[in-house]
Amino acid sequence: MTELPHFQRLALIGLGLIGSSIARACKSASLVGEVVGYARSAETRVAAERLGFVDRTTETAAEAVAGADCIILCSPVGTYKALGAEIAPALEAGAVLSDVGSVKGCVLRDLQPVIPEGVHLVPGHPLAGTEHSGPEAGFAELFSGRYVILTPPEGADLDAVDRLGGFWQAMGAMVEIMAADRHDKVLAITSHLPHLIAFTIVGTAVDLAEDIKGDVIRFAASGFRDFTRIAASDPVMWRDVFLNNKDATLEIIQRFNEDLTALQRAIRRGQGDVLEHRFAETRAIRRGVIEAKQDDMPAPPAETDEQP
Amino acid sequence: MTELPHFQRLALIGLGLIGSSIARACKSASLVGEVVGYARSAETRVAAERLGFVDRTTETAAEAVAGADCIILCSPVGTYKALGAEIAPALEAGAVLSDVGSVKGCVLRDLQPVIPEGVHLVPGHPLAGTEHSGPEAGFAELFSGRYVILTPPEGADLDAVDRLGGFWQAMGAMVEIMAADRHDKVLAITSHLPHLIAFTIVGTAVDLAEDIKGDVIRFAASGFRDFTRIAASDPVMWRDVFLNNKDATLEIIQRFNEDLTALQRAIRRGQGDVLEHRFAETRAIRRGVIEAKQDDMPAPPAETDEQP
Repeated sequence: MTELPHFQRLALIGLGLIGSSIARACKSASLVGEVVGYARSAETRVAAERLGFVDRTTETAAEAVAGADCIILCSPVGTYKALGAEIAPALEAGAVLSDVGSVKGCVLRDLQPVIPEGVHLVPGHPLAGTEHSGPEAGFAELFSGRYVILTPPEGADLDAVDRLGGFWQAMGAMVEIMAADRHDKVLAITSHLPHLIAFTIVGTAVDLAEDIKGDVIRFAASGFRDFTRIAASDPVMWRDVFLNNKDATLEIIQRFNEDLTALQRAIRRGQGDVLEHRFAETRAIRRGVIEAKQDDMPAPPAETDEQP
Repeated sequence: MTELPHFQRLALIGLGLIGSSIARACKSASLVGEVVGYARSAETRVAAERLGFVDRTTETAAEAVAGADCIILCSPVGTYKALGAEIAPALEAGAVLSDVGSVKGCVLRDLQPVIPEGVHLVPGHPLAGTEHSGPEAGFAELFSGRYVILTPPEGADLDAVDRLGGFWQAMGAMVEIMAADRHDKVLAITSHLPHLIAFTIVGTAVDLAEDIKGDVIRFAASGFRDFTRIAASDPVMWRDVFLNNKDATLEIIQRFNEDLTALQRAIRRGQGDVLEHRFAETRAIRRGVIEAKQDDMPAPPAETDEQP
C-alpha cells in the first residue's frame, strides 16, 4: 500500500467530466496534499470553486503547474501542444506529467519535444466516461473498476510510472501498461470507430424529414437509443480524437466499410445464408465480453440512460 | 376497462423470447382463458410444458390454432408464408390473427392472400426484447412501458383492432396504430440499420488478429460493448428482417454510407470544423430521446448487460 498522500500538489489542467472526477476522488479519500485546478473558461473555474472539488484555481495553466509534483492534462488532446509550450518553463524537475486523452501517440509527439529534462512524461487514458460533460458532471467513483491504460515512452522512469499507477489504483482503477501505438490501434476499434458510427447514424437521422424524425425519436428504444447516448459525447473532444488518431481510424473505417458492403450486397441479392452466418459469428465476441466482465461496470450516479 | 378474459383461447406459434413472454404475461394476470403453444422444435415444446407458461402444446401449428379466438405468430417473419398456408384451413371465423415480427409489409404480403374470409388479420410489433433467445429467456414484464405498433390493413375490422390493442395494454404496453410501410421505414432507421451496423462492427472485430482481438474484448467498455449486446440478437430472426425489409434497409444504408464517407473525408483532410459541427448536431436528437422518455425503460430481470 502506497502511503498517502500520493502527491503533494496535483495540478489539473481542464476541469470537465474527467478532471473534476479526479479532483473529487482525491478529495473524498485525501489522496493528494492539494488540488490546484486550471480551466480555460472563467465560468468553469468559478463552478469548480463553488463545487469545492479543488483547493484553488489559477488564471493560467503555468501558474497551476508551478510547484506541482503531478500534473494531469484533462483537456481535449488538440490543446496539448500549445499547453506544453506554455507550462514547460514552469514544470519542476521530478514532477510526473500525465494526461487522460483518448489518443496516446500524439501526446508523445506533442509533449516530448518541449518538456524539460527531469520531468517524467507518462501519458494515460482512463476508459471511463458518461455522455455528460462539464465540471458538474464529474463524480468520485467514475474510475472505480475501470481500466486506466498508461503508455510510458521507452526509457521512462519506472518509479514515476509506479507512482502514477498507484495513484490511479487508489481511485479504484485497474492499471495496464501498453505501447502508445498499440493503444491507438485497439482504441480505434473499441472506441473511436463506434463513436464515429454512432455520430454518423444519429446524424443520418438529423437529416430526415420532420415527420419521420418524430417517429424515430419516439420509437428509439429499438436499438437507435444506444447510439444516441454514444453520440451525445463531447464534440470538441471527439473532433480532436479523430484528427489525432487519423491513420488507425481511417484503416478501421476502411475495413468496416468493406464488411458493411458485403452485408449490403447479401441483402440486395437475398443471400440469407451469408447474413445468418455472419450474424451467428458475432455472438462469440459477445460471450468473450461477458466473460471478461466488461459488461458489468459500476454505475455512475449521474448516468441518466441506464435501466433502473 | 376490458373484461377478462380478453380471449378464450390464445394460440402462440413460436415459444421463444417473445412468445414465452406473452404466455407468461397472460398467466400472471389471467388475461386469457387458455394458452396453447406450438414450437417447431420438440425441445422447446418440452421446455414450455416444464416451465408451465402454456396450458398445453401441440405437435403442429394447425392443431394449435384450432378453436383459438386469437392467434399470434411469434416465429421469424420468414416462416409466415408456409405457416399461413398450413394454418389457414384450421382458422375459425371471427378469430384475430396477429404476429410480433419486426417487419410489417411482408406480413400483409404473405398472409392476406391465404387467410379465410372472417378471420381478422391485425399485424403487430412489440418494440421489446433482450439479447437473449429461447423459451427460458422470456418474462411477464417484457412489454411493460414498451410500445406495440399495430398495422391493420385498410378496411380492417375495428373491433378486432380494439380487442388486440386492449390485450397488449393489459400486458403493460403502449399501443400505436400505423401503416405497415411507414412502420417499415421508421424501423429501418431506429432498429434495422443499428442492428446491421452492430453486426458489422462486431464482425469486423471477429476478423482481427488474435492478439488485438484479445485487447478489443478486454477494453470493450469504451463503446464497443454496446454494439456487442445489440449484435448478440437472434441471427435467424435478423436474417429474416433484412430479407423482408430489403428496400427500406438498402435505402437507409445508402444514406448512412454517404454520411460516413463525408466524415471519413473530413478526417483524412483534417477538417476539424466539419467534424465538430456534425458531432454537435447529434446532441439535439439525444435530448429529444430523453424528453420522449425513451431512455428510461423498465429493467428486464434476465438482462445481464445493464448497470446494476
